Parts: sequence; structure tokens; C-alpha cells
Amino acid sequence: MTAPAILQLGPVLAYLDWAGVFVFALSGALLAAEKKQTLVTFVFFAVITGVGGGTVRDLLIGAPVFWIHQNVTLIICFAAAIIAWLLPARTWRGTALLWLDAIGLAAYATYGAAKGMAYGVAPLPAMGMGVLTACTGGIVRDVLAGEPSILMRPELYVTAAALSAALMVALLLLGVPATLAGAIAALAGFALRAAALRRGWSLPAYRR
Amino acid sequence: MTAPAILQLGPVLAYLDWAGVFVFALSGALLAAEKKQTLVTFVFFAVITGVGGGTVRDLLIGAPVFWIHQNVTLIICFAAAIIAWLLPARTWRGTALLWLDAIGLAAYATYGAAKGMAYGVAPLPAMGMGVLTACTGGIVRDVLAGEPSILMRPELYVTAAALSAALMVALLLLGVPATLAGAIAALAGFALRAAALRRGWSLPAYRR
Amino acid sequence: MTAPAILQLGPVLAYLDWAGVFVFALSGALLAAEKKQTLVTFVFFAVITGVGGGTVRDLLIGAPVFWIHQNVTLIICFAAAIIAWLLPARTWRGTALLWLDAIGLAAYATYGAAKGMAYGVAPLPAMGMGVLTACTGGIVRDVLAGEPSILMRPELYVTAAALSAALMVALLLLGVPATLAGAIAALAGFALRAAALRRGWSLPAYRR
Repeated sequence: MTAPAILQLGPVLAYLDWAGVFVFALSGALLAAEKKQTLVTFVFFAVITGVGGGTVRDLLIGAPVFWIHQNVTLIICFAAAIIAWLLPARTWRGTALLWLDAIGLAAYATYGAAKGMAYGVAPLPAMGMGVLTACTGGIVRDVLAGEPSILMRPELYVTAAALSAALMVALLLLGVPATLAGAIAALAGFALRAAALRRGWSLPAYRR
Repeated sequence: MTAPAILQLGPVLAYLDWAGVFVFALSGALLAAEKKQTLVTFVFFAVITGVGGGTVRDLLIGAPVFWIHQNVTLIICFAAAIIAWLLPARTWRGTALLWLDAIGLAAYATYGAAKGMAYGVAPLPAMGMGVLTACTGGIVRDVLAGEPSILMRPELYVTAAALSAALMVALLLLGVPATLAGAIAALAGFALRAAALRRGWSLPAYRR
Repeated sequence: MTAPAILQLGPVLAYLDWAGVFVFALSGALLAAEKKQTLVTFVFFAVITGVGGGTVRDLLIGAPVFWIHQNVTLIICFAAAIIAWLLPARTWRGTALLWLDAIGLAAYATYGAAKGMAYGVAPLPAMGMGVLTACTGGIVRDVLAGEPSILMRPELYVTAAALSAALMVALLLLGVPATLAGAIAALAGFALRAAALRRGWSLPAYRR
């Protein structure tokens, strides 16, 4: 495998990875708070949500799982859990969870698609890597907490991840430098998700 | 790993693989239709259900994940989602889902067991590969949609997958050519599942 | 990967692995009994619960999946399913499930952390391997059966796994022989879980 290739994608993408881990971990811990759980469950939810998507991505593309060979990724998740535990609860909590999830979604979709391309995955599956890895953490978080999965709601969620992932794959194929491509793709996906959150945009549902 | 060995299993098994992907993808998209979802959710369910079982199989036996290095598998899933979206809804829909699922079950159980044998897996785990990979897609589809999992119902479902997988392993061990073995094993499993569907056959449940 | 390194961990750890598989398989089959399922579902639940945690561990650390290349692990799971099917039901059944689960938890947390260390995983993720692999089987078992996951209850469960895993990692890093370290870590985790079961110990929940 071409492990070093990912390094050529530049530091912006590495920051997208950290951002994805931290905000997803925080969103997992905030859900544990909503459910009045213990600190251990805060940590468990933070880890599962923070590293879940990237773990599935790495297993699928045959990369070493990204958080296994150093301690720092789990420390970020632990920090997110402790921050969520210590923060005073306010009414912004539900809103914060939604927006953190939106940032994580765009960051992970972009970074997942880029890492797929770096490992020689075909374009369509590389886009799939972005979508799956952006959505997996949140889906597992919701299933474990017994919440209805985001998948079953009509709002633009998976679509925003697909936009980021498709843009990243297309821009890389067109030869756009990875840093610029990553910034464009992540911003576009986040903007679409933000518009969906603010204006209540949703896709048309199937009518028999 | 002996990746080329699977090629010696002949084209019939490759067709079983395509058949498994397409009918499972269609069954996933039809469930999305029943739940009145959006087109994006149709695609998501088609992909998860279509490639879920084979993905678990490939991860367990240490094979490269089968849909990662070319675009065609995902295109099949997208096509299944669009077909399900465009088809006029009729009362046959629930029935079609059941029968497509039966075809996918037999095809995947047979192909999964054969691929396990081709990768040097021991006989009993090879049979397990067939069963797990035939059942995983449908189970994940049902859990994500909030439907009761097929596992908890007494009808002959896992049993039909186990019949196909066990026959395939036994026939290959006896030296029967892979094409013939695959046809026998897939037909036997499908016949058992079909009989269970038509005649309401079920296994005796545990009585304290 | 350093596959032989695990052998140096000594036979005690191998026994912990067998113990984990058998008691988790039995706990899965007993849940199938509670739910009045068929023998095939007994086997399915025994296999998923028995090998689920170790499978996730091996995929994450890049080890060959432990039950794929020999038949004996699945035979143990089948035996557990048949034993659960044949045993006369009594009121001890629910209690037995709890205590078997406690033994499996301590055994798997200790063995998972040790195998992680043997494969060169960093200390914190190695501890995570112990916790994740000890808890995954039971969580999947509960989700498939539609039971509320242990994660959402305040009792000391994940915490006991974390104690075993953390002790094992710390003792190995301090140079304590693996057999002694394994015995201490497994006993400590089991003792904590046992105390929690007997005295109803639980962690404080989050209060807004």
C-alpha cells in the first residue's frame, strides 16, 4: 500500500482529520449528556463516534487503522468527553450537537475521499469512502443511543457528505492541488448542510 | 493470499456474485420505498444491503474488499436504487422484496463459502462465511430501517443459507467441479427458502 | 506482523481466550433461549457473541481473524448453543447469563489488551482493544435481540473491562511476566464487576 502518498495531500487534510475526530467525539459525548449517562459512557460514545467512520474507511481501503499506532487520537476523544462532562449545560446543547456534526460531516467526507484516492481506490468507491466514513460515526452513535437514525429523515445530510466527497474526487482527478481541493470540497459540503439546517431544506420523499 | 484461485471457480460463481449484489441492492431500495424515503436514502440502502455481506466476508478472510478497486459494483447498486425509484408501486412490492431476498440469500451463501475455500479458510469457518455474508446485508438493512430482524423469526432463513453454504463446502471437498457444485448448492438453498415462503415452514422454537 | 509474539504470552492467556469464547457463546445462546428462538438462532447468537469481540480486535490490529483458519472455535460455539438448548430451564438462567458475561468480560478485556500489545499497538489503543473487544460481543447480542444496550445503564460494566485492560497494559509495561499479569488483571476486573453485581454499585450519572 502507498501509505506515504497520503502525506503528499498536505497538512490541511491532516487538520480535517483532527477536526473530524474532535467534533464527532464531542457530538457523541453531548448525546451521552442528553441521555444522562455516566462519565465512562461519555468516553465510550466519544471514542465510537470520533473514530468509527475513519476506522471503517481504513478497513475498507486496506490501510492500517489510523488510531492504533499512537496515543493522541484517543486522548483527543477523552478530552472531548471530559469537556462535555464539565461544560455547564445550556439550551445551546442540542444546537451545538447539530453544528458540530455538520463540521465533522464535511471534514470527514472530504478527508475520506482523499485518503481513498491516495490508496488507489477507484473514483466511485473513493466517493463512497467519503460518504460512508462521514456518516458511519453518527449512525452508530444514534443506533447505540436508541435514537432514530439520520438516514430515515428527509433533510439534506448524506447529500451534503456526497457533495464534499464527489467534489474532492473530481478536483483531484482534474489535477487541482490537494490543499485547495480539500478547502473547496469541505466548505461546499458544510455550506449545503448549513443551508439545510437553517432553511429546513429537504429532499422530496418517495410517493408511491 | 491466493487471489487468482477464486478465478478458477469459474464464471458461474462470478454471476452468483453479481446476482447477489443486484437483488440485495434492489431489496434495500424497495425497503426504502416502503418507508417513503428520499432518492439518496434509496441509494444508501441499496449500497449497504448490496455490498454489506460481501464486505464482511472479504474483511474476515483477508481479501481485498471486492467493490473498492473498480466502479462497476457501485454502479449496479445505483441502478437498482433508480429502478426501484422509477417503478410503479404495486401490491407485488412486498412479495418481490421477499423473493429477491431469497435469490440473494442462496447466491451469496454459495459464493461466500466458495470464496472462503479459495482463500484457504478451514471448512467450518468457510461455511460460516457463506451464512454470515448471506445474512449480514439483510440484517443491517432491517436494523437501519427499524424493522424486526429476520433472526428473531422462526421461519427457515438462516437455515437455507446454511444449507447452500454447507453443500458448497462439502461438494468442493469431494472434488465436484466448482460450476456444478455452485449450481447445486445455490438451487438447494433457494428451494428450501422458497418452500418455507410458500408453505410457511418454520423451525420449532425453544420451549422452556 | 509479529504473530508469534502472542505465543510468548503463555498458555494462561490462551485459556482466557477459550474462556471468553465459550462463556460469551453460552450467554448469547441463553439470550436466544429467553427469547424462545429456534436452534439455528441459538447457534447464530452463540457465534456472534462468542467471536464478535475478538473479530473486531483482530481486524483493528491487523491480525488474521482468530477463528478463520481452524474449526475448533466454531465447534466451541456450536457446543455452547447445544448445551443451552438441552439444559433444563430454571430460575438461575438470568443470573447465569449475568455471571457468565462477567467472566467473559474480564477474560476478553485482559486477553484483548495483551494481544494488542503483542502486535505493537500503542498503550492507550491497546487498552482500548481490551475494552472494545470485551464489550462488542455483548452489545451486538443485545442490539440484535432488541434489548437495551448495557452501555446505557449506570452499572459498572465498561469500567470493569477498562480496569482489566489498563492493569494488563500497565503490568506488561512494568515488565511483569505475562502469566502473572494476566491473572491479576482478569481477577481484578472480574472482582469489580462481581462487586457491582452483588452490591448494585454504579457510577454517578450526568446531572445537567
